[in-house]
Amino acid sequence: MGSVFGNKLKISVFGESHGAAIGIVIDGLPSGESIDLDEVYRQMQRRAPGGDKTATPRKEADIPEVLSGFLCGVTTGAPLCAVIRNTNTRSGDYGNILSAPRPAHSDYAAFVRYGGHNDIRGGGHFSGRLTANIVFAGAVCRQILKRRGIDIAAHIYSIGGVCDEPFEPTGISGELIERLNGEKFALVDPDREGAMREAVDKARANGDSIGGVVECTVQGMKAGIGEPMFGGVENVIAAAVFGVPAVKGIEFGSGFSGSSMLGSQNNDEFYFDENGEVRTRTNNHGGALGGITSGMPIIFRAAVKPTPSISIEQKTVDLENKKNCTLSIKGRHDPCIVPRAVPVIESAAAIAVMNLL
Amino acid sequence: MGSVFGNKLKISVFGESHGAAIGIVIDGLPSGESIDLDEVYRQMQRRAPGGDKTATPRKEADIPEVLSGFLCGVTTGAPLCAVIRNTNTRSGDYGNILSAPRPAHSDYAAFVRYGGHNDIRGGGHFSGRLTANIVFAGAVCRQILKRRGIDIAAHIYSIGGVCDEPFEPTGISGELIERLNGEKFALVDPDREGAMREAVDKARANGDSIGGVVECTVQGMKAGIGEPMFGGVENVIAAAVFGVPAVKGIEFGSGFSGSSMLGSQNNDEFYFDENGEVRTRTNNHGGALGGITSGMPIIFRAAVKPTPSISIEQKTVDLENKKNCTLSIKGRHDPCIVPRAVPVIESAAAIAVMNLL
Amino acid sequence: MGSVFGNKLKISVFGESHGAAIGIVIDGLPSGESIDLDEVYRQMQRRAPGGDKTATPRKEADIPEVLSGFLCGVTTGAPLCAVIRNTNTRSGDYGNILSAPRPAHSDYAAFVRYGGHNDIRGGGHFSGRLTANIVFAGAVCRQILKRRGIDIAAHIYSIGGVCDEPFEPTGISGELIERLNGEKFALVDPDREGAMREAVDKARANGDSIGGVVECTVQGMKAGIGEPMFGGVENVIAAAVFGVPAVKGIEFGSGFSGSSMLGSQNNDEFYFDENGEVRTRTNNHGGALGGITSGMPIIFRAAVKPTPSISIEQKTVDLENKKNCTLSIKGRHDPCIVPRAVPVIESAAAIAVMNLL
Amino acid sequence: MGSVFGNKLKISVFGESHGAAIGIVIDGLPSGESIDLDEVYRQMQRRAPGGDKTATPRKEADIPEVLSGFLCGVTTGAPLCAVIRNTNTRSGDYGNILSAPRPAHSDYAAFVRYGGHNDIRGGGHFSGRLTANIVFAGAVCRQILKRRGIDIAAHIYSIGGVCDEPFEPTGISGELIERLNGEKFALVDPDREGAMREAVDKARANGDSIGGVVECTVQGMKAGIGEPMFGGVENVIAAAVFGVPAVKGIEFGSGFSGSSMLGSQNNDEFYFDENGEVRTRTNNHGGALGGITSGMPIIFRAAVKPTPSISIEQKTVDLENKKNCTLSIKGRHDPCIVPRAVPVIESAAAIAVMNLL
Repeated sequence: MGSVFGNKLKISVFGESHGAAIGIVIDGLPSGESIDLDEVYRQMQRRAPGGDKTATPRKEADIPEVLSGFLCGVTTGAPLCAVIRNTNTRSGDYGNILSAPRPAHSDYAAFVRYGGHNDIRGGGHFSGRLTANIVFAGAVCRQILKRRGIDIAAHIYSIGGVCDEPFEPTGISGELIERLNGEKFALVDPDREGAMREAVDKARANGDSIGGVVECTVQGMKAGIGEPMFGGVENVIAAAVFGVPAVKGIEFGSGFSGSSMLGSQNNDEFYFDENGEVRTRTNNHGGALGGITSGMPIIFRAAVKPTPSISIEQKTVDLENKKNCTLSIKGRHDPCIVPRAVPVIESAAAIAVMNLL
Repeated sequence: MGSVFGNKLKISVFGESHGAAIGIVIDGLPSGESIDLDEVYRQMQRRAPGGDKTATPRKEADIPEVLSGFLCGVTTGAPLCAVIRNTNTRSGDYGNILSAPRPAHSDYAAFVRYGGHNDIRGGGHFSGRLTANIVFAGAVCRQILKRRGIDIAAHIYSIGGVCDEPFEPTGISGELIERLNGEKFALVDPDREGAMREAVDKARANGDSIGGVVECTVQGMKAGIGEPMFGGVENVIAAAVFGVPAVKGIEFGSGFSGSSMLGSQNNDEFYFDENGEVRTRTNNHGGALGGITSGMPIIFRAAVKPTPSISIEQKTVDLENKKNCTLSIKGRHDPCIVPRAVPVIESAAAIAVMNLL
Repeated sequence: MGSVFGNKLKISVFGESHGAAIGIVIDGLPSGESIDLDEVYRQMQRRAPGGDKTATPRKEADIPEVLSGFLCGVTTGAPLCAVIRNTNTRSGDYGNILSAPRPAHSDYAAFVRYGGHNDIRGGGHFSGRLTANIVFAGAVCRQILKRRGIDIAAHIYSIGGVCDEPFEPTGISGELIERLNGEKFALVDPDREGAMREAVDKARANGDSIGGVVECTVQGMKAGIGEPMFGGVENVIAAAVFGVPAVKGIEFGSGFSGSSMLGSQNNDEFYFDENGEVRTRTNNHGGALGGITSGMPIIFRAAVKPTPSISIEQKTVDLENKKNCTLSIKGRHDPCIVPRAVPVIESAAAIAVMNLL
Repeated sequence: MGSVFGNKLKISVFGESHGAAIGIVIDGLPSGESIDLDEVYRQMQRRAPGGDKTATPRKEADIPEVLSGFLCGVTTGAPLCAVIRNTNTRSGDYGNILSAPRPAHSDYAAFVRYGGHNDIRGGGHFSGRLTANIVFAGAVCRQILKRRGIDIAAHIYSIGGVCDEPFEPTGISGELIERLNGEKFALVDPDREGAMREAVDKARANGDSIGGVVECTVQGMKAGIGEPMFGGVENVIAAAVFGVPAVKGIEFGSGFSGSSMLGSQNNDEFYFDENGEVRTRTNNHGGALGGITSGMPIIFRAAVKPTPSISIEQKTVDLENKKNCTLSIKGRHDPCIVPRAVPVIESAAAIAVMNLL
C-alpha cells in the first residue's frame, strides 16, 4: 500500500470502512504547538455525513481519540496518532459487491491487486470514510500554518454545471476565509446554493449522483518556497490531492483555460505594491513559477467525479460465474460528495504545504 | 533542489541551460536490457528545437554521451548516466533578465529561493532544455516497457483553441502508436495541422506565444498495479508530469468534464470481452480506479501554458532599482512548445510507470 | 520525528511510555498472508518485562489490538495497525527527571530537541517500551518470511564479559533456530546462563546495570538480494537496528575482528556444495558482498549498552537552577536488557529484510 | 541499484571502474556557498592511489569536471554534478574474474544480482574507485559545514593489530583536526607510522593484504539534532558509512567495549562547563543519546576489512565449467586501503551530517 505520504511531515493512514477503526499517524509535527481539538472536530464535522441534507444518511460519531504526541493541549514532537472507532457497520448495505464489482469503484482493481483478500465491506481501505483521517491531520496542520501566517480555504466551484463565483485569484479576504472555513456547503456567493442543491436533489430523485469542482487557495506563503523540478508546489500538492478518492484532475492558476490563451494574456505582470513587495497584477500562474512560490496565493481546482454509488441499474460482471450481469446499488447514497470534499481538499493542501515549508 | 524523482527507478537531473552540460543519472534500471541508442536519439530529436518550423531557432546537437551503466548495448544494472554538452551558449540573447524578471518565468521565484546565486543564463536549471534529460530517460524506459507489452503515445490535443481528434479512450491501435511515436507534430488527424500552425504563426507574427494541451495514453498495463492512497497511478504520474515546465494542469479520463456529469453518465460499465478479460465499455476513469490500474488504457491530458517568452513589451519590476519597468524579450523564441512537449510528457509518463510496476 | 522506517515495507511507530497507548502502522504487507497472532504475542512476551527474574519488575499486559489490515486471520493488503494500551503508568517512579536529566538517557538531548515539550514520563517516545511495537511488526514479518524459507534467530552473545558459544557462521540448524525463537534467555549453550545471571545479579545488587552483545542470523536468503551502494544488506539492517534504543554498534561477519586479520585469513573461499550451489567455506563476510547477499547466512552482532537507569548516585545538572547536582534513580530497574533485546533485534532485522526482498 | 543516498541532501553516484567515467550528482546544496575546488582536489588526493608507498600503484588523474550547479566559485543551488574520466583502464589486469569470482569481492553476488550483465572490469560499479565520488561530495559538504562551525576528522585507529593513540572522546584540538585533514597517512601519534607500515609491508611481501579501523569525529554540532527512532545520528551515519566498500562494522562512543561495561562505568555524567554549557565528563555515548546530538563530539569507528585482492592462491569456483578451481590475482594490489579509507569515511560522515541538520 502507499498510504504513507510526505517527507518533512509524514502521515500514515490506516483503517477500513467496516473494520475496528480508522486512524492516522502524523510524524514530524513541530513540538510545542497548541492544538485546539474542538476546532479540529469542527473541521471533521464539515466532512462528516449526515449533518447536511445533501449528504449520505449514514451517521458516524467520528470522534477521534488522540493516542500520542499530544500532552496538555500541546504537541510533544513525537508522532501524533488519532484513532476513530467504527460504530456503524451495517455491512449488509453493500450486498453483492464481491461477485459484482461496482462500476467506477475500486472494487475490481483492488480485487486484482490484493488477490481478493482486501476488506470489501463498505469499500474497505478505499472508502471515502478514510478521508476523515486526512481532515484530522489537515486541521491540525492548518492551526500550525495559521500561526505562521498561512491560511487555506476552499469552496464549491461548481456542482454539475452550476458554478459559484470563483475566488479572486490575487487574494481573498480574511473574512471570506473565516466564513468558508466554518461552512458545510462552502460558497463564495451563498445565493448559488439553491441552484446547486436543485441539481443534487434531481440526481438523488433519479437514483443518480453528480460531480463537481472544488477550488482551493493557500494564502500567506512567502516567495521562494518549493524545489524544482519534482519537489515543486504543483508536484507536491497534486500528489497529495490525488490521494483524495474521486479526484480525477487538478489545475493551478489559469490551468486548462490558460492553455488556450496567448502568452500576452496568460503572463502575469510584476509590480511593486505599496509596501514595496513584488506582486503580480493577475494570478494565472496560481502562485507557483518553476515550482517555487511567487508570493502570490496558491490557487488550484480539483475535479471531483460523481459518486460511483447509484441505485440506477448498471451493467457489470459476475466475477464468480464469469458472466456479465447487472447491479443496482441498494441503500441510500450521498448523491454528491463535493461539499464534503471541500475540507478534505483543504486538508490535503495543508499536509502538502507542511512538506513544502 | 528537488530534481530527484522516483523510488523504484530514481532519476537525478542536473545541468543549467548555459553551463557546461546537462544530464541525468538513472538508478534502478533492470540489467540486461538492450537499448537502441539511435531510437533514443530519435525521441530526443522530436523534442529538440530547430528541426521544425514551429520551433525555436536555437540549434542544439543534443547528442548525449552515456558514461556508465551501459555495456555492449545492454544495461549493466548500475546507474546509467548520460551527459549532453551545451555548445550554443549565446547568453547575450537574454539580456536584462537579472534586474527585470520575465513575467511567467521562474526568474523571480528562483531569485528569492536561491538568494540570487542561481544561474540565470537562459533560465539556468529551469530551462526547457533540461527536458532533454527527461526524454533521454523516458526513451530508455519506453524500450524496456515495450518489451513488457506497455506502449506510450501522446498527441497534440489542442493548440490555442484548435483541437485534434481525441484518443479513443478504450484504446488506440498499434499503428497509430507507432506513427505518433515518430512524429514531431503528433496528431491523430494530420489534417488539423494546418489550422494549428496557423494559430502558432499568428502568435509568432505578433511576437506572442500560444499554449495547448497534450493527451497521453499508456496501453498494456495489467489490472492491479498501483498503491492507494498516495502511491496510485494518478499521484505518481501527476508528480512526474508537473516536473515538466509549463504544465499547469492534469486530468485523467473524463477529468474536469466528468465533474459536471451524472454518475450514470460517468460510471464505466464492466463486461467480459471475447477473451474473457474484464473490460469497461467506456473509459471515463482513465485506467485507474482507487489509484490502481483497471486494465484499461491509462489516459490523461496535461495543460501546457503559453511560452512565457514573448517579444511584446510587458510590465515587470526592476529589482535592482526597486521600481516598476517594462521588458521586451529580444531574440527569436519558440512561440509554441506544445509539439515538443509531446515526447517530454510521454517520457515523464514512462518514468512514472517504471515506478508503478 | 523519524519514527517511520522503510520503503517497500513502511512502519510508522507511535506512542509514549505513559501516554494513552503505543502502536505501529505497517504499510506494504503482502495481502493474503495468514498471521498467527498467538505466535506474535509469544514473541512479544519474550520482550515483555516481568516474566523473567533478570527483567524489570514493571508489569504490562501488552496485548495489542489489531485495528486494520487484518480480516479472518489473513492480511488484507491495507495498512495493519496495532495498538497497545498503557495501563501501568506510575509516573511517580521517575521523579526529578525534568530538572535533572538522567546520564546516558535521551532526557537532555530530547529536552533541547523538543524545547521541553516532549513527554518525559517514563522516557516518553524514547522509552524501551516502544520496542514492543517493533517486536509486533517483526513477528508479523517473520511469519511471512518463514513461508518464503527465511528464518531469523538471535542469542545473547555476551553479557558483561561472559560469552555464549557463538553461532556457527556458515549456518545453524533448524532445531536451534526453533529453540532460540521460543526462549526469553536465548543461548546457544544453555550452560552459560548461570554465569551470565551471576553477572546481572551482581550488578543489580550494587544498584548498577550491565550491557552485552546480541548476535543475529538471517538464514535462507538467496544470493543476489540488495542494492549497492546505499541500499545494501548492511546499510538497511544497520539503519533498522540502530532504531533499537541502547544499540551503539553493529558488525557483520568477522566485523571488527576481521579488520585486524590478513586478507588470506579473512577472505572466504568459494566452492560448489553437493547440490551444485555456490557457497563459502567460512563466512567472515557475514552473508553480504558489495551489499548483496551471497547466499550464505547473514550474520551480525549488535552492541547493547548497559541500561542507563541505575540507583547508584550519579552527577548531573539541574537545568532549572542551572547548577550541577546529583541524582539517584529510585525504583527498581532492569539491570540488563540484553535478553529482552534479543527479540527486538531479530524483529528489526526482519523489518529490514522485508525492505531488501 | 541503490546508489542514491539522502533526503535533505541527495547524492546519486554513478560510474564503473573501467567505463567512460565515474561521477556524482549532489542535489540539495544550499545556494551561495563558496567552494574552494583546490581544497576539494586536495581531499581527493588523500584518497587517490599512487601517491603513497602503501597505496596501489595504479595512477589516476582523478581531476573532476564540475558540470553544473557551480558558477563563479559559488554554488547555484541547482544540482552539482562532477564527472571524473577514467583514463587508466588496463582491464587485462583482472583476467579471469568472469569465470572465477574473487573471494571476498562482490563478483559472485553481483553476477547473480545482475544476471551477468554487470560490468566486471575492475569491479565495475563496486570498485573502490567509486569512492572518489564520495570524497568529492564530502569535501564540498565539509567546506559548507566548516562555515557552520562543524569540523570532521578521522585517523587510522589501527592497522592489523597496530594501534594509533585514540581520539580524546570529549574533543580534539583544532590544530589536530587541521593536521589530520591534510595527511595521507593520518595518525594522532605520527610515531606509530613505522610500526603500521611494517605490518603493511609484510603483508605486501607475502602477496597478502591487511585491514584496519578508522576512527572519525564530528565536532561542533549543537545539541538537539537528529530524529528518533530511525532518523537518528547513528542510523543516518551508519547507512552512509556502510556505503563505503570494505566497511563491515561501525560503533559509536564506547560501542562494543561499552557493552561489557557496567552502567556506572559507561554512563556519562553531565555538568555545566565554565560557559554555562551542558557537557558530559566522558563521552561513552559518542555524541548521540536517543539518536539526538548531545552537544558532545560525535565519535565513531568503522571496521575496514583487509583488501580482498591478494596474489596468494585462493580456492574459488569456475562458474562456467561448474567446478571448483584456484585463483591467483595477478598485478600489483594495494595491500592496505585503510589510510585511503580515512577521507572516504570522513566524507560519508559529512554527507550524513548534511542530512541530519
